[in-house]
Amino acid sequence: MATEVATKAAGATDSRQRFIDVAIRLFTQHSFAGTSLQMIADELGVTKAAVYHHFRTREELLNAVVRPVLEELRAIVDAAETQRTAHGRAEHMLTGYAGLAVRNRALISVLAADRGVIEILRAQRDLGALINRQVKLLADVDPGPAGLVKAAMVFAGIAGAVGPALVDLDDEALNQHLTEAGRRTLGLRTPRRSGPDVPPQQATVRGPHS
Amino acid sequence: MATEVATKAAGATDSRQRFIDVAIRLFTQHSFAGTSLQMIADELGVTKAAVYHHFRTREELLNAVVRPVLEELRAIVDAAETQRTAHGRAEHMLTGYAGLAVRNRALISVLAADRGVIEILRAQRDLGALINRQVKLLADVDPGPAGLVKAAMVFAGIAGAVGPALVDLDDEALNQHLTEAGRRTLGLRTPRRSGPDVPPQQATVRGPHS
Repeated sequence: MATEVATKAAGATDSRQRFIDVAIRLFTQHSFAGTSLQMIADELGVTKAAVYHHFRTREELLNAVVRPVLEELRAIVDAAETQRTAHGRAEHMLTGYAGLAVRNRALISVLAADRGVIEILRAQRDLGALINRQVKLLADVDPGPAGLVKAAMVFAGIAGAVGPALVDLDDEALNQHLTEAGRRTLGLRTPRRSGPDVPPQQATVRGPHS
Repeated sequence: MATEVATKAAGATDSRQRFIDVAIRLFTQHSFAGTSLQMIADELGVTKAAVYHHFRTREELLNAVVRPVLEELRAIVDAAETQRTAHGRAEHMLTGYAGLAVRNRALISVLAADRGVIEILRAQRDLGALINRQVKLLADVDPGPAGLVKAAMVFAGIAGAVGPALVDLDDEALNQHLTEAGRRTLGLRTPRRSGPDVPPQQATVRGPHS
C-alpha cells in the first residue's frame, strides 16, 4: 500500500517534470506569450485536462518552471554578499551566474529575454529585490553609471550567449569563456589556476592583451 | 489635385508610422507573440480594418517595424568590413551597433531577445547572413571559441543593457559606457579623444584598471 502510494507520487512528479521540460522548450521556441497550455498538451500527446491537473494557469506553470533556478540564484546572491571585498563579491556573483546560465541554457535565455516572462516575474516584489541585489554585486566594482551599464551588459550578455546560437560548446568551455569575458568587462582579476582553494585576493592581474 | 494626392500620401505615411510606433511599444510590453493586430487597433482607437489597410498580417507589420533598423545595421556591417585591421573592423562594428542600439532602445531589445521575432527573422536567409557577418566582425579579434563567446556577449549585452531597466541615462552617456564596456570585453584599444579624425592605429592602450 505504502509502495503503491510512493509509486503514484513519483509518477505524478515525473509527469509534472515532463510538463515543465516541454514548457521550457516551447517558451524558448515561441516565447511565453506564444505558448498555450493546449500546445503543451499537444506536444506531450495528452489532454488539456491532464495539464490542468498540475497547472491551472500558464502563470502557475511559469512559476513551477522558474522556481528551482530562482532559488539557486538566491543562494548565489546570498553567498556572494558574504564576501569581504567588492571584487570578491563580484567574482562570486559572476562565476555563480555563469555556471547557473550554462546549466540552464534554454531557461535562462527565456528568463532574461522574454518580455512576457519578465512582466509577470517583476510583479513579484520579492524577485525585483533579488535582481537589484544581483545587479549591485557586479555594479559596485565601479560605482556609478559605468558600473551599472557593465553589470547590465554582463548579465544580459551571459544570458544571450548561452542561447541557441552558441550550442556547439560544451558546458565547461562555455562557462570558462563567459567567466573570462565577464571579468574583462568588469575589470576583475583572473584567479590563479594553481588550485581550487586559492582565495581571490591572491589572484594575478591580467591585462586585456595577455 | 497633385497637392491633394501628396497630402493623402503623407497622411497614409503618418498613420502607417503610428501603427509602427504602437507596435514597437506593444511588442516590448507583451512580446511579438503576445501582440495581436486587434490590440494595436484598440491602442490607437481605430478598427481592425484600418490596421489591415496597411498590414495584412502580423509578420508584414514586423517587417515594416524592423526594416529601417536592419538597413542601418547592414550599412554599418558593410562599412566595418572595409576597415584595414581586425581591431579596426571590430571598433567600427562595436561603435556602430552601440549607437544603433541606443537610438532604437525599445526596438533593439525586442529584436535581439524576442524568440517569436527571432524565429521569423531567422527564416529570412538574407538576414541570417547579415548576423553572421556582424558576429564575425567582433569575433575575429580573437579567432576561436573565446572570440565567438565575447562577440555574442557584447551584442546580447548591449541589446539587454539598452532595455527598460536602464532608462535613466541619456543617449550620449549610455552610448559611451556601452562602447567602453564592449572594448574591454573584446580587448580593443580606446581611440584618443583628441579629434574625430585620429585613425584607430594611433590609439592608446588602456588597461582594465586604468
